[in-house]
Amino acid sequence: MANKIAFLGPVGTYTEEAALRYDPDADLRPYPSIASAGLAVLTGEADESVVPIENSLEGSVNFTLDLLIGQSGLFIRKEIVLPIEHYLMGKPGTRPTEVQVVYSHPQALAQCQGYLERNFPQAQQMASLSTVAAVTDAQASPVPAAAIAPKRAAALNGAEIIATGIQDVAANVTRFAALGKSDHPATGQDKTSICLTFDQDVPGQLYQVMGEFARRDINLAKIESRPTKQSLGQYIFWIDCNGHREDADMKEAIEAISKAVSSIRVLGSYPRWVATT
Amino acid sequence: MANKIAFLGPVGTYTEEAALRYDPDADLRPYPSIASAGLAVLTGEADESVVPIENSLEGSVNFTLDLLIGQSGLFIRKEIVLPIEHYLMGKPGTRPTEVQVVYSHPQALAQCQGYLERNFPQAQQMASLSTVAAVTDAQASPVPAAAIAPKRAAALNGAEIIATGIQDVAANVTRFAALGKSDHPATGQDKTSICLTFDQDVPGQLYQVMGEFARRDINLAKIESRPTKQSLGQYIFWIDCNGHREDADMKEAIEAISKAVSSIRVLGSYPRWVATT
Repeated sequence: MANKIAFLGPVGTYTEEAALRYDPDADLRPYPSIASAGLAVLTGEADESVVPIENSLEGSVNFTLDLLIGQSGLFIRKEIVLPIEHYLMGKPGTRPTEVQVVYSHPQALAQCQGYLERNFPQAQQMASLSTVAAVTDAQASPVPAAAIAPKRAAALNGAEIIATGIQDVAANVTRFAALGKSDHPATGQDKTSICLTFDQDVPGQLYQVMGEFARRDINLAKIESRPTKQSLGQYIFWIDCNGHREDADMKEAIEAISKAVSSIRVLGSYPRWVATT
Repeated sequence: MANKIAFLGPVGTYTEEAALRYDPDADLRPYPSIASAGLAVLTGEADESVVPIENSLEGSVNFTLDLLIGQSGLFIRKEIVLPIEHYLMGKPGTRPTEVQVVYSHPQALAQCQGYLERNFPQAQQMASLSTVAAVTDAQASPVPAAAIAPKRAAALNGAEIIATGIQDVAANVTRFAALGKSDHPATGQDKTSICLTFDQDVPGQLYQVMGEFARRDINLAKIESRPTKQSLGQYIFWIDCNGHREDADMKEAIEAISKAVSSIRVLGSYPRWVATT
């Protein structure tokens, strides 16, 4: 039976493309938010869920980090890296010189800022809830409008492509995470995501934690401070490091860290993405 | 002559309120984006600029971090912490039971998710470019609509308040930064923001940097990984630590770190915010 995969919809988004790359035979189900796509795994509506977790220009997708921090029982089991290519599109026959409004998700608008300033300095920029919603927003606009969206959204919505590859930096890639009720067995080329909290901000507590990794030559790929949502300046630290939680040195490091922190949780070990050129 | 302060507009936003708290006598000038408000200082259009930098629920405001990382010559000179209180408002006479669409900035929608799910489960949520734009979006809506916005936006736009204090967590505060061409002299209760990069992700490089702080009992308040925008997985680290860059121990730490990293820049030393109850 096909793997049921929930993804951040609607149909036609980059996330759907990532889910298709992850499992071309899956039974794909769009969800309206990152949280609902993730929770679908916990309720059993889906076997796995694919959501964006980081973009090379914008950084972490905080909704996804906060979802994993907030929901025990949900784990990262794979990462999928996808190049992001933005297209400008509109109602068939839309003339670029007449475009008065450009719709897109704020993240996509941000990624095409230079292009828009050069080519549409007078156009108003309007936020849409997704890049795909931007296409219907532009089509419904009473004045000539365009949308920044993935190529596939044009075909799905009967829009015409006005310009291709309009993102400011060519190297625009997004990392997606496949989430499930368990993580991935060790492959020898793995990554582990961990979150941890401290009792108070004692100087050097985070330093001590990082020492447990450094001492074992475990490379830290990334560190983020996410708010505890209780009080400004109190953080949950998110750490990505190379290795699998079942590796002997990682096991030792996690055990040592557990004694020094207020809480620690492994959010999953999964194969490290390697570009296939 | 009044201090010219650029702020993230439009008039009526929380940022304007923060700018007024910072300098009640200032000549306030709204700008359409965080970047344009910041650049106004560099071009001399404004003496200072007030922009949001962190929210207790959502975390860092990445546009602001990236602006400071990208623009040398711009420094943080003060932090201003403001409680955020969201109001639901609409055209006078709007009946809550009839509301079909709720507009707001995505961050404000996120902060009222629980309230919206309980009270407006059927209403469509629509993104606006700012909480103030949400009010005019709701007023222009062809179907009954409401907006989540600051109290002041109701009076400014002739909207009627439907509900008050609708944010999910009462302790919702935003930290704003006043930016200028120089930072703030030492007060004895200061904070310093620094950004740094490494040549490659050698295990333990960040650990070594943190050691320079820990060894001198300098507390790290915060650490973030911002993308270099060159390649996925390469980061610029943003560190907030307690102390002033002119303090002897901080000076020593920064000097020692300079030798270990590929680049380091002090983004400003400024008085640490202390709540006045």
